Amino acid sequence: MTLQNAHTSAVPQEPSGRRTVGWHKDHVTGDRPDLRVPVRRVHLTNGQDVVLYDTSGPYTDPSIETDVRRGLAPLRENWITARGDTEEYPGRPVRPEDDGIKHTAPRGGLRNLDAVFPGRPRRPRRGRDGTAVTQLAYARRGEITTEMEFVALRENVSPETVREEIAAGRAVLPANVNHPESEPMIIGKRFLVKVNANIGNSAVTSSIEEEVEKMTWATRWGADTVMDLSTGRNIHTTREWVLRNSPVPIGTVPLYQALEKVDGKAEELTWEIYKDTVIEQAEQGVDYMTVHAGVLLRHVPLTARRKTGIVSRGGSIMAAWCLAHHRENFLYEHFEELCEILAAYDVTYSLGDGLRPGSIADANDEAQFAELRTLGELNRIAKRHHVQTMIEGPGHVPMHKIKENVDLQQETCEEAPFYTLGPLTTDIAPAYDHITSGIGAAMIAWWGTAMLCYVTPKEHLGLPDRDDVKTGVITYKIAAHAADLAKGHPGAQHWDDALSDARFEFRWEDQFNLALDPETARAFHDETLPAEPAKTAHFCSMCGPKFCSMKISQQIREEHGDGSTAVAGAYDAEALAGMRAKSEEFAAGGNRVYLPVVD
Amino acid sequence: MTLQNAHTSAVPQEPSGRRTVGWHKDHVTGDRPDLRVPVRRVHLTNGQDVVLYDTSGPYTDPSIETDVRRGLAPLRENWITARGDTEEYPGRPVRPEDDGIKHTAPRGGLRNLDAVFPGRPRRPRRGRDGTAVTQLAYARRGEITTEMEFVALRENVSPETVREEIAAGRAVLPANVNHPESEPMIIGKRFLVKVNANIGNSAVTSSIEEEVEKMTWATRWGADTVMDLSTGRNIHTTREWVLRNSPVPIGTVPLYQALEKVDGKAEELTWEIYKDTVIEQAEQGVDYMTVHAGVLLRHVPLTARRKTGIVSRGGSIMAAWCLAHHRENFLYEHFEELCEILAAYDVTYSLGDGLRPGSIADANDEAQFAELRTLGELNRIAKRHHVQTMIEGPGHVPMHKIKENVDLQQETCEEAPFYTLGPLTTDIAPAYDHITSGIGAAMIAWWGTAMLCYVTPKEHLGLPDRDDVKTGVITYKIAAHAADLAKGHPGAQHWDDALSDARFEFRWEDQFNLALDPETARAFHDETLPAEPAKTAHFCSMCGPKFCSMKISQQIREEHGDGSTAVAGAYDAEALAGMRAKSEEFAAGGNRVYLPVVD
Repeated sequence: MTLQNAHTSAVPQEPSGRRTVGWHKDHVTGDRPDLRVPVRRVHLTNGQDVVLYDTSGPYTDPSIETDVRRGLAPLRENWITARGDTEEYPGRPVRPEDDGIKHTAPRGGLRNLDAVFPGRPRRPRRGRDGTAVTQLAYARRGEITTEMEFVALRENVSPETVREEIAAGRAVLPANVNHPESEPMIIGKRFLVKVNANIGNSAVTSSIEEEVEKMTWATRWGADTVMDLSTGRNIHTTREWVLRNSPVPIGTVPLYQALEKVDGKAEELTWEIYKDTVIEQAEQGVDYMTVHAGVLLRHVPLTARRKTGIVSRGGSIMAAWCLAHHRENFLYEHFEELCEILAAYDVTYSLGDGLRPGSIADANDEAQFAELRTLGELNRIAKRHHVQTMIEGPGHVPMHKIKENVDLQQETCEEAPFYTLGPLTTDIAPAYDHITSGIGAAMIAWWGTAMLCYVTPKEHLGLPDRDDVKTGVITYKIAAHAADLAKGHPGAQHWDDALSDARFEFRWEDQFNLALDPETARAFHDETLPAEPAKTAHFCSMCGPKFCSMKISQQIREEHGDGSTAVAGAYDAEALAGMRAKSEEFAAGGNRVYLPVVD
Repeated sequence: MTLQNAHTSAVPQEPSGRRTVGWHKDHVTGDRPDLRVPVRRVHLTNGQDVVLYDTSGPYTDPSIETDVRRGLAPLRENWITARGDTEEYPGRPVRPEDDGIKHTAPRGGLRNLDAVFPGRPRRPRRGRDGTAVTQLAYARRGEITTEMEFVALRENVSPETVREEIAAGRAVLPANVNHPESEPMIIGKRFLVKVNANIGNSAVTSSIEEEVEKMTWATRWGADTVMDLSTGRNIHTTREWVLRNSPVPIGTVPLYQALEKVDGKAEELTWEIYKDTVIEQAEQGVDYMTVHAGVLLRHVPLTARRKTGIVSRGGSIMAAWCLAHHRENFLYEHFEELCEILAAYDVTYSLGDGLRPGSIADANDEAQFAELRTLGELNRIAKRHHVQTMIEGPGHVPMHKIKENVDLQQETCEEAPFYTLGPLTTDIAPAYDHITSGIGAAMIAWWGTAMLCYVTPKEHLGLPDRDDVKTGVITYKIAAHAADLAKGHPGAQHWDDALSDARFEFRWEDQFNLALDPETARAFHDETLPAEPAKTAHFCSMCGPKFCSMKISQQIREEHGDGSTAVAGAYDAEALAGMRAKSEEFAAGGNRVYLPVVD
C-alpha cells in the first residue's frame, strides 16, 4: 500500500464494532519485513482515514518500549553490514578534552565517565580501505539501496526516482553508517520540503537531558532533521546521547567543538585539530556537517562595510583565523582530504554560508554571492569524491530578493539541495522571528529550497525552550507544507482537503486530529465553547448558532444536489428555469436557512 | 519636519543633561496648528532618534486625558464644517430593535438607556441637498483637503500625490463626516500597507466594554482600521462606544445588523430594512461598509460543488435570500440608491467578496472570479457617484495562485485598493492561521494589496481574546512591513536599519525599543540573561561571551577601518598587499578576536 492510496481507505473496525477516533502510529510496509515506513494514521468519524508523514520515531509507537539510556534499535544495521563494504575498527579514543574537560580536571585528569552514554553499543565503522560508502556512490553505480526504497515508500515515488535524484546530486539521503538508528529520509526539491530544528547547549545555559528531550520533542512535531549546535561543556557526550536516541539524521558544526579544544582562540585552530574533531563526530554517527570552507581570505574585506558584518558563528571564526594568519581558510585548502574522510562514513556536506546577510541592508551583497560561487566550486569537488552535498543559504532577505538566491544557488551549485535559514523578511520584529522568517521560508521553498532551518521566537534574544522549539517547528511545517502545495506536490493537498471537508461538515474532532497541532486547536475551541456537545454542534464558535455561513452553504448544496447541472449551465435559460424550480422547493420547505442546532 | 528627515535628527537633551531612553508620543506638525500628525519617537542610547508611524491615538499621549465615557476630541470637526457643504439634521431616531431588543422587552418596550453612549455629542451631519461630500469628489475637483494634507505628512509624500491617487480611485481616505474623532489615514498601493483588525461580539460571548478595549488595544499595536463585526445584542450601542473612542476609521458589515432586525431569517430581509440600517450606521459615523452586492443569483449554483461552499457570512445570507425569493440580490438592484446615501456621508465602500474561497481546493474558481467581475462593474457605478471604493479579496489561496488574484482584481476594478483577508496558504494548521495567512498576506501586499485584514490564532476555532488580537495585529504588521520593504517604499527600510545597527552594536535597550513588540522582546531576553548588566553586555544570549560572531565582525571592521579600500579592490594585488599589512597589525594587537566582556 502506498501513502497516496492509503489515505482514502477505510479503517478496519475494532472487534467491538466501535472505531477508535483519533490517530495512531502505523507503518507502511515494503517488500522486506524490515522495511516499515512510519506514518501517522488519523481515524475520522466518517469511517475514512488519512495517512500523514511521520517523523516522531518509535517514541509514538506504543508497541515499542524506548529507554533513553539504551538508545533506539539500529534499524539500518543489517542493511549496512549486508553491503559488505564497511569495516569495524577500534576508533579514535575518546579524550577528556572532547567534552571540554581541561588538564586541571580532578581525579588525575580523568573525567567522570558516568555521563558517557551507558549503552554505546558498537565499535565505529567506516568504508573498507577508504571506499566511498555513500548513497551517492551507490546511486551513481545504479544501485537502489534499502534506504532508497524506504524513502521511496515514504515519499510515494518510485525507488528509481529516488536513485536518479541522488545520482544527479539534486537530492541527499543523510545516513552515516554509524547512525543506524535513523529512519531514512531524503532532501531534494522533487520531494516534500523538509524542516530542520536546531538544539544545543551553550556556555550560558542548558543540559544534556534538556537537549535529548528537545530532540524528541522537535521530531514529535515534525522536525525532519536536528542539528546539535552545542558549544559549551559536554559536547561529545551530549551528542552521543542525542545520536543514540535520534530517529532523524543529526547535523553538527564541527568547528564549534574544534574551537572549544583551543579554548576559544580562533587563531590557534589547526587543520589537525579540526580533522580530529570531524573523525570523532563521524565515528559517533553525525549524518551531516556544516563546513565553512567557502569563507576565503579575499572575501573577508567585502564584509567590512556591511551593516551587520559576519553573523554566522562559523563564518566569523574562519574569517578571524584567515586574518590572524593571513592565509587561506584551512578548510578550503584541505577540502579534498576532508572529502575522503566524509566519504568513508557517508557524512553529507552542508556547505555553510559563513557570509550570509544578517540584516535586510546586507542581503544579496557581493560578500554573500562571492562565497556562493566558492561553494559551487566546492560542490563540484565534493561530488568528485562521491560525497553527498547540500548548500546552506540566508539569512535576512527582503521578499523581492529571495528568488535571486535560489536561482543563483541552483545555477552555481548544479541543483544541489538548498538548505536555508528562513530567510527573515524584515529585521523589526525580535520575539516574532519565527514569523518574519516563516514568510521567507515558505517563499524560498516554493522556489526550490529543499530543507528549511527553523527559527524560533527566541532568535536574536535567547535560547529556545520547549515551547519555542514547538512553535518554531510548527511554523516551519506550515511554511514547508504551503510550499509543497504551491509546487503541486502530488501528496500534499489531500491533507488540506481532508481538513476542509471536516470543517465544512462540522466534524470538530476530525479537524482537531488532522491539525498540525491537535492539542492547541482543541484547547482554543474549548476556550469559547467548552461543553462537550459543542464538539458535535453544527455551528462554529465564531458566529454562534444563528449565524453560520457553513450551515447556509450546506443548505444550498442540499437544495442544489451536487450542483452539477446548475454549474454546467449556470448562464443559460434552461439552468435558470431549473433554479426557479429549486427555489420553489426551497420555499415549500419553509425557507429554512438554519438547521436546528444539535443539543 | 517630515518623517524621513526626522529619523536621523538628534533629540534635544533634557535640562539635566540626561536623555530619556525609550520612546514617547510625538507629533509632526504641518502648516496649520491643528495639523498634528502623531508619531512614535524612539530615543536611542547613541543620541539619535527614530520616528515611526503611529496608530495608537491620544491614548498614548500623556498630555491628553482620555475618558471612554466622554469620547475623543473631534479632531476633524472644524475641517468638515469649514467646507460648508454639510448640514446637521435631526437624524433617524434610535429604536430598541437597533440593539436587538424585541417587542416583548420589559418596561413598556423601552430599553434601558444607561448603556447608550452618555456623551453622544452631536446631531448627525450629511451632505447638503444630497451633495457628495467625499474625499473622492474633492480630489476630482482638484481640492486638497486638510485630511489629504494630514496623510501626506503621515506618509511622507506630497499632498498632490495623495490627491492624485484618491482622484484616480487608486486610494481611499475613509472619513465619514460623522466620525470627526478619526485621524486621517490612506489606503492605496502607493502608500504604506495597512492592517485592519476585526472585533465584535457575537451571540455566544463578549461585551461592550471588551469591544472598546479590544479596539484601543488593537490600535496600540498598530491596527490602521478596525471593523466592528458584532452580531448579537447591543449592536448599535457597542458601535457608538467604539466610534466615539476610535482614532482609526471603523468599518462594519451592515447586513449583520439588518439580519438581527429580522430575527436571523434571511428571507425576511428587505431593501428598506437594509437601507434604514445603513443610514443608522452612517449617522453614527461608520467610515467604511462591507456590502455584498456582488453575490448574484446566477453565481450561487457555482458554489454547490465546492469543498467548503460559501464561507462568507454576508455572502451566504445574500445567497440564501436570492434562492428563497428567486430574485436578484437586492443590494445589486438598489446599488445606485445605496451610492447616493454613502456619498452624502463619505462612507467608503468595501465591496465584499461573498464568494471568497474557504479552502485551498476552492481557490480561484469560477464562483470567486464571476463575483470579482461583478465587483468591477459595481466599482464603476460607485465611482460615478463619487463614492470611495475598495474591493475585498480572499480567503484561502495556495501561494502559486495568489498573484493571479491581485492582477485580476487590479485589472477588473481599475486599480481600486484591494483589501484582502490573508490569504491562508494552507488549511492544515487551525490555531496557527495567523501564520498560514501571514505568509499569504505578505506576498499579496507585495504584489499590490493595499490593506490586509488580520487573522488571529483563534480563526476557525473561537473568538479572539486580548492576546489573540495582539498576536494577529503584530503578525500582520510584520507582513505589511515586509511588503513595504519588497515594494521599495522609501520610508520603510530606515526602521530595519536602525534595529540592525542597534543589534550589531549590542545596544540591547535600543533593540527592544525599536521592536514591534518591545515588551516581549525584553521579556525573552530576560529569560536567558535576566541580570541588568546583560542589557549592556557585548555578547548575545544565544552564544554566550566566548562565541559571539557579532563581536568577531566588529573586530574585523576595526582592523579594516570601514573597509572601503579593501572592498573596492578586493580582487587585485594591491588590495591583497594592504590586507597583508592589516593582518600583521592584527597579529601585533595580540590576535584578540574576542573583546573583553563588559561586567
